[in-house]
Amino acid sequence: MRRYVPPLEDMLFVIERVLHAPGQWATLPGLADPGIETARHVLAEAGRFAAEVLAPLNAVGDREGCAYADGRVATPTGFAAAYRAYVDAGWASLGCAPEWGGQGLPHLLEAVIQEMLVSANHAWSMYPGLLHGAYACLAAHGDAALKARYLPRLASGEWLCTMCLTEPQAGSDLGRIRTCATERDGAYVIDGGKLFISGGEHDLTDNIVHLVLARHPGGPPGPRGLSLFLVPKILPETGQRNGVYCDGVESKLGIRGSATCSMRFENARGWLLGEPCKGLAAMFVMMNAARLGVGLQGVAHGEAAYKHALRYARERIQGRPVPGIAAGTDPVPIALHPAVHASLAAQRCAVEGARMLAYWTAQLLDESEYAASPDQRRHAHERLALLTPMVKAWATRAGFEVADQALQVFGGYGYIEETGAAQALRDSRIPPIYEGTNEIQAVDLLVRKVIADGGAAYGRLLDELEAAARHDGQGLEQQAVQLDALAAHRRLLADIVQDSARDPGYPYRAADDFLRATALLCLGRWWLKVLALSREGGAAPRGKAATARHFFDTVLPGIAHVEHRIRCARRALPELDDCD
Amino acid sequence: MRRYVPPLEDMLFVIERVLHAPGQWATLPGLADPGIETARHVLAEAGRFAAEVLAPLNAVGDREGCAYADGRVATPTGFAAAYRAYVDAGWASLGCAPEWGGQGLPHLLEAVIQEMLVSANHAWSMYPGLLHGAYACLAAHGDAALKARYLPRLASGEWLCTMCLTEPQAGSDLGRIRTCATERDGAYVIDGGKLFISGGEHDLTDNIVHLVLARHPGGPPGPRGLSLFLVPKILPETGQRNGVYCDGVESKLGIRGSATCSMRFENARGWLLGEPCKGLAAMFVMMNAARLGVGLQGVAHGEAAYKHALRYARERIQGRPVPGIAAGTDPVPIALHPAVHASLAAQRCAVEGARMLAYWTAQLLDESEYAASPDQRRHAHERLALLTPMVKAWATRAGFEVADQALQVFGGYGYIEETGAAQALRDSRIPPIYEGTNEIQAVDLLVRKVIADGGAAYGRLLDELEAAARHDGQGLEQQAVQLDALAAHRRLLADIVQDSARDPGYPYRAADDFLRATALLCLGRWWLKVLALSREGGAAPRGKAATARHFFDTVLPGIAHVEHRIRCARRALPELDDCD
Repeated sequence: MRRYVPPLEDMLFVIERVLHAPGQWATLPGLADPGIETARHVLAEAGRFAAEVLAPLNAVGDREGCAYADGRVATPTGFAAAYRAYVDAGWASLGCAPEWGGQGLPHLLEAVIQEMLVSANHAWSMYPGLLHGAYACLAAHGDAALKARYLPRLASGEWLCTMCLTEPQAGSDLGRIRTCATERDGAYVIDGGKLFISGGEHDLTDNIVHLVLARHPGGPPGPRGLSLFLVPKILPETGQRNGVYCDGVESKLGIRGSATCSMRFENARGWLLGEPCKGLAAMFVMMNAARLGVGLQGVAHGEAAYKHALRYARERIQGRPVPGIAAGTDPVPIALHPAVHASLAAQRCAVEGARMLAYWTAQLLDESEYAASPDQRRHAHERLALLTPMVKAWATRAGFEVADQALQVFGGYGYIEETGAAQALRDSRIPPIYEGTNEIQAVDLLVRKVIADGGAAYGRLLDELEAAARHDGQGLEQQAVQLDALAAHRRLLADIVQDSARDPGYPYRAADDFLRATALLCLGRWWLKVLALSREGGAAPRGKAATARHFFDTVLPGIAHVEHRIRCARRALPELDDCD
Repeated sequence: MRRYVPPLEDMLFVIERVLHAPGQWATLPGLADPGIETARHVLAEAGRFAAEVLAPLNAVGDREGCAYADGRVATPTGFAAAYRAYVDAGWASLGCAPEWGGQGLPHLLEAVIQEMLVSANHAWSMYPGLLHGAYACLAAHGDAALKARYLPRLASGEWLCTMCLTEPQAGSDLGRIRTCATERDGAYVIDGGKLFISGGEHDLTDNIVHLVLARHPGGPPGPRGLSLFLVPKILPETGQRNGVYCDGVESKLGIRGSATCSMRFENARGWLLGEPCKGLAAMFVMMNAARLGVGLQGVAHGEAAYKHALRYARERIQGRPVPGIAAGTDPVPIALHPAVHASLAAQRCAVEGARMLAYWTAQLLDESEYAASPDQRRHAHERLALLTPMVKAWATRAGFEVADQALQVFGGYGYIEETGAAQALRDSRIPPIYEGTNEIQAVDLLVRKVIADGGAAYGRLLDELEAAARHDGQGLEQQAVQLDALAAHRRLLADIVQDSARDPGYPYRAADDFLRATALLCLGRWWLKVLALSREGGAAPRGKAATARHFFDTVLPGIAHVEHRIRCARRALPELDDCD
């Protein structure tokens, strides 16, 4: 069975030394500054919970999956008890506002804890995964009565919740939603079917609160006719069952312990959240946090898979020593074989890089919410708009790729389910798909965020990266690599903006590679910071500076080919096959 | 359910126009030249068998898996009947020599048929998958009595066979094998346990012939003490059960319909194949063909996954038209969205490129066996030694990557088992692992084949690629791209040979990327040929030339970064984490 050991050393290294987060907390007036000692304590405790309670249920959940019968869903053995333990220990309420019973902790710490829960047990973490998003949505859009009735129950985790968006014909394209609301006696009634609803039905809580996107009565067709409704499974006013039914659970590649439900709303009582026909906007309130949360799933998968492979590679004896390594060691653990060593080094570089990107973004989420001046908040929002799709797509891809490389380290044993490496591959494949596919993130970044204002906001991000490189990189040979890459990227950006005006299809073809280039430059910023820190001295995880050098040697130079492909995307794509 | 439609047009395009195989067959005296009409007919029939008999069992086999009880293995519903149909139609004997009841068809045609069987149903294809290898091994190393007793039964497919190599402590490192042979009454008795034995037990045939690697009595420790033994499940002389037992089947990530068995040999009667203590050499007779066979599995997975995604993308309606595409089409099939189109174009380029590499190698296998002059045969052997590990690693990786990209095209539906895209991802993950992991192939190529003779044989391969580029590329702008890449690679090769003499660990660190560079240059050769053919005119699959241009625009230039990493590998790898 795969163990989980929370990587507290690296997490705290990023929080404290790379991002200087504790110093920032003190400057954010709206935030309940926990102080670094409390933060360390909270993370250590969360890590213990993840390792001791959740990780042992990871393989069980995969093996058993969820059982469906007669509208009810039984979660795997131990999942409900673990959820009670989670609620009892107060983990559900960490990020919620104190007025609703929460503890108002920074998003950054929530993000770190999210990483831990997912590393230990992705499937289980799906149940409370939407709690904070639904809480934030209700806090922003609910009226006083709704808030009073639901927020304390959500903040405590007593009730869980879902987001009901997808329908068979409406996946990436929510404008095609057919589920509709009708007005009856001054209230709303919801009818329609929803697909792929995580936690749509389960046995963890007595009530489940569904946030449902549905056509507003009399609204226009397409996305502008959608409103967001709160639809509880049990009506709290009366304790009666609402018209919400689960018709089945999907058999999935991974996260099998998470109930992915087909839902049916029949004559279900619902409450409008936000303005009529502004359902997408109401939902987008939680979009940045939700997408960052999925990005963190990528970090979590990468972390768990890398450490799993590393432990195995140090134990597994196979082969004779290769010239130049392991002199005098025969037999040798496979970690000493160069191909395995190189794979593990690449895995580490990917995981720790993605972690810096995700935590940085979480820190900006705190700034966007709690900073004193509107300018600071605006600045943080501008950055978040650019970084969130990048982190979602880059980190989830990195998580899957690391899980894939980790599986390879196990050789034939990786292909056997018993080892756990195969489950990691399967579980890690969903984050690149849900919460907007990675391709949609890339279009969001380039078309909607970069091109839309002629590259102005993105240019300011590049200014920040350049200033950081000039500051952190002083006297480091890697500074020039980063600065040259930034300069080349600026030239490319100008061309993209210009060419897109002539050919509006171009940025759609270039989007995936553009997102990759953005991620590489952002990674360059933080790996340069790591090198600067290691020159300053002070404690750092073993091999950290060498990993940073590895990034500048072998990863960042790949940006040249990525940008070559961006230029090639100016041409039309080749025709595809005929096919029967 | 995923359908399979054999891509006969592209297969024949490669066989006839790219490789001019029918012309070559006529020049190989040892080969029963089928002629192109017969070849077309055989392939069309094989395609029909794969599509109509095997493909419908692909999802069933995955769902049911193999059932183990009391030493017996039940294969999934329909597998045994399909195998009988396969034998009855004479497919098992295609490549075997006429003297043993076979039809002596070219390896190239066998390769194409292998691609079809695996595309339709990889798990099922595992059962007859080792037949030809075991046949060839026995034909080369068995004495007359053994051959007479076993070869006709293997050639006809009446009996199936296995390769029993792996043990728990001996995976990539066969020198650690413990299973041992003892001499008793002038015969051999085998005792020991074997792991991950494909088709070790099943209900398809009455007898199963195991080729077992075991320690020779009195032999030295390590790989030089191993002999190869033929150990039948049923002793044909008496009809009695031999001491061969199956203790269980593995629960695997994919190819679940293939029985991966733990085998136990207890006092089992065995016959020596080849010389005592030359077991590895005896087994290596079938190594090139077996590795090429696994490479073809990569082609097969890529082909099936790409076409599956292409069909879906043309049917699935989602989203509004993007500027510059699909003007006037609303709603649009997702195949018209640039991100999906680009992914499908990349998939096609990967599949059709890998197919050219694999078929080329199969053609060389025919030349190495049947060419008139020893020089020609030697030349073909030299090429095969270089190309086989490259095809095994490159094509299997391509197959998995295409399956991964194809799954992404399905969005959320790709993550649901019902669609079949998830099974493709799972099934396609084993070829990069078995028959020597891809990392072992890379070391085989660079350390054992390239460095060992100072790059001489490899230099001759580069000469061939250069001559082809000068000939085929005349007047094409892509000629310069290919010639520049070849020139840069030659300079790098000289440095690698030199640097490896000083630091023997270096090529081990550079091997994976070296194999990638080799593959890209070989692909360049054949895509240039495709461009030359399209300039000549004549029928070619739709979009073929555009796909070739796409390769030179967006894929081949990546070699610069690959070779940059090869140079970086001269430095030591970064230290890895501490981990508990």
